[in-house]
Amino acid sequence: MSHTAELIAVGTELLLGNIANTDAQMISQGLSELGINVFYHTVVGDNPERVRQAVEIARHRADIIITTGGLGPTCDDLTKVALASAFGRELYFDARSAQRIRDRFAAMERPITDNNYQQAMLPQGCTVLDNDWGTAPGVAFEAEGTHVIMLPGPPRECEMMFRHRAVPYLKRLSDGVIASRTVKTFGIGESAAEDKLRDLMNSLHNPTLAPYAKPSGTEMRITAHAGSEEEALALIAPVEEKVKEILGDVVIGVNVGSLEEVCLALLKEKGLTLGTAESCTGGLVAKYMTDLPGSSAVFRGGVVSYTDEVKAGVLGVSRELLDRYGAVSPQVAEAMARGAKAALGSDIAVSVTGIAGPDTDDRGTPVGLVYLGLAYGEQCHVREFRAGNVTRERVRRQSAQTALDLVRRYLTGLLD
Amino acid sequence: MSHTAELIAVGTELLLGNIANTDAQMISQGLSELGINVFYHTVVGDNPERVRQAVEIARHRADIIITTGGLGPTCDDLTKVALASAFGRELYFDARSAQRIRDRFAAMERPITDNNYQQAMLPQGCTVLDNDWGTAPGVAFEAEGTHVIMLPGPPRECEMMFRHRAVPYLKRLSDGVIASRTVKTFGIGESAAEDKLRDLMNSLHNPTLAPYAKPSGTEMRITAHAGSEEEALALIAPVEEKVKEILGDVVIGVNVGSLEEVCLALLKEKGLTLGTAESCTGGLVAKYMTDLPGSSAVFRGGVVSYTDEVKAGVLGVSRELLDRYGAVSPQVAEAMARGAKAALGSDIAVSVTGIAGPDTDDRGTPVGLVYLGLAYGEQCHVREFRAGNVTRERVRRQSAQTALDLVRRYLTGLLD
Repeated sequence: MSHTAELIAVGTELLLGNIANTDAQMISQGLSELGINVFYHTVVGDNPERVRQAVEIARHRADIIITTGGLGPTCDDLTKVALASAFGRELYFDARSAQRIRDRFAAMERPITDNNYQQAMLPQGCTVLDNDWGTAPGVAFEAEGTHVIMLPGPPRECEMMFRHRAVPYLKRLSDGVIASRTVKTFGIGESAAEDKLRDLMNSLHNPTLAPYAKPSGTEMRITAHAGSEEEALALIAPVEEKVKEILGDVVIGVNVGSLEEVCLALLKEKGLTLGTAESCTGGLVAKYMTDLPGSSAVFRGGVVSYTDEVKAGVLGVSRELLDRYGAVSPQVAEAMARGAKAALGSDIAVSVTGIAGPDTDDRGTPVGLVYLGLAYGEQCHVREFRAGNVTRERVRRQSAQTALDLVRRYLTGLLD
Repeated sequence: MSHTAELIAVGTELLLGNIANTDAQMISQGLSELGINVFYHTVVGDNPERVRQAVEIARHRADIIITTGGLGPTCDDLTKVALASAFGRELYFDARSAQRIRDRFAAMERPITDNNYQQAMLPQGCTVLDNDWGTAPGVAFEAEGTHVIMLPGPPRECEMMFRHRAVPYLKRLSDGVIASRTVKTFGIGESAAEDKLRDLMNSLHNPTLAPYAKPSGTEMRITAHAGSEEEALALIAPVEEKVKEILGDVVIGVNVGSLEEVCLALLKEKGLTLGTAESCTGGLVAKYMTDLPGSSAVFRGGVVSYTDEVKAGVLGVSRELLDRYGAVSPQVAEAMARGAKAALGSDIAVSVTGIAGPDTDDRGTPVGLVYLGLAYGEQCHVREFRAGNVTRERVRRQSAQTALDLVRRYLTGLLD
């Protein structure tokens, strides 16, 4: 049986435009993976009567209502009160939830105020969704043919509660199990990936194969429906192999994180350290690496050489190279990578030099033209990358990602 | 007379979670500034019947309906068809809009396909909102006491069409003019700002004064309603002065951009160059500065010294200081800033060293403890900053912003 869900976000801050409704996006993605239809999202303010009206409309359009927000003490837990009343449930004081709230405040060494206990008032007969990421417990119940799930609003809390609490609850509503695996790529667009995989995609029913364009690269999601997780994964495995075979070396991994996470894991595995020399990306490659906890084990540091003087003085790029070929050249990219490796004492070093725009340099180098170098041992690999005349932000992001991809390719033996 | 608007976003990609409804956030902010209430947002898919139902519900809750999306040729212009039918309007072929579409394709040197002309089918008697940022014209009309405004969905196009087309239309609905000015701060929380300004806020009716918490710092928006823009600004001026006086040196400017934009403008004005030395922020300060076009005029470069060896080797921090005080110390922050200034040849240099977490260092330095240095001339100013035990991302962002604030304070003579 196919289910239809409606999302109701409760929060005046959404109606004032202080934040975007990213909870709805995250939950919609998750519901789509579960094969649950979503026909409407509604956003309503912290107003009991309007929340009640939104619920009245939603219950006639959907058999699953998922609310986000309005659970904390500052909004008087209005979502729980409104939903319980809409479905004719009384609230009761849940002692176990109260104890969890008390424990959480104790762990944070913060005094607990009385209004926090109101979060332990829950609809009679509900399934309590324990919140390990915040204070307000979530709630799920079924009444009059409608499943109601209430989640907290803060995005990270909402995501954790959805993935670890709501998804298992929703999976029990459908027959069998849904499992998925994601093949991540870098360096291929969504439509190019679709072109290559079209025959395979058209030949499949279970599992299904779908591309998703993300800023970090195109992802191919393989989703199977079966009697057990094991069976679903067995259906996925041969398709996963086929996708990897067709897409080749643009595949950075399956069910992996970002390019920088892949690089960090590979560097740790091989016991190698990394350094960076950045011109147009201005520290972005270093920022990506150091975003990750544990990066200090393999990342030694970087130089942002935004002027020729810094390229010469700190990285030891010769004045002659800079004068003859210009700062945006394969020669300077190589000298920067070699110089960074020496100055930072890293096993390998990656360099980026290019024109991020919107303006070009004195030599009229086109915006979006970028050279990258990767120094290792006595060698250096140099690559040209053309981002094209896109925004400054996009040239910088794509150039930094291409630098990380160069590191990945070196560490997986793809550069030879 | 006070107006109430409802936003209806049309797009299956929103219901699949491919994108977040950022159009709704942008428009809600704009409506809030115009003093127009928003009680509901609705998202609905590319389905004529469900769009019609959403409109039927909205017209009983609001007197202004703003739709986004569903205007292009790929979705059969379903929003225009649905709204025209809901309000009993016929569509006509608008020759002027068709010509604009033709001209746009010619300018892009792309062949025009027939389905593009369908975008020129508009509801009888509407105000055409010319689209200078895409092909589909927007539309506004009044029918049966409801104002309907239809805007394209792609975020940038939507924002331009809202600001330059919808806002002037909406301003005509209200008597007089609304103007606002924003006092930006760094280093004070929303509730602390509210505490300081409470008496002033409570004493005001026109203009009004409201705080907004943004990741970049708390903003105070002063909004006035008057017969003309000039009168509105005259009402705002004394309140703006009062707010600046009460908040003091945490004010980074009025109607200004980010901290880095303020720093870039100050550096240009004073003809000074900047360098950076970063440990825990790992390139984030350099990244913020180089996000800005034109930063190469004042930003010379930076060193990301993620290991003691790089601090010693590239920045010349003495081994003795590192051994005696540890890398996270005021002494090392000072030596890093002085070293960066010398190595990069900049007029001033800012340094950051601290523990971003989640793990501490060998010395058990608390997560979130950060030291910053600002070297200028022969001097160096050192500052301690405690981000507290928050996420790694937040420690890094706040530390980088505090470094930029140190630069701002130096450049505006606040450090002495």
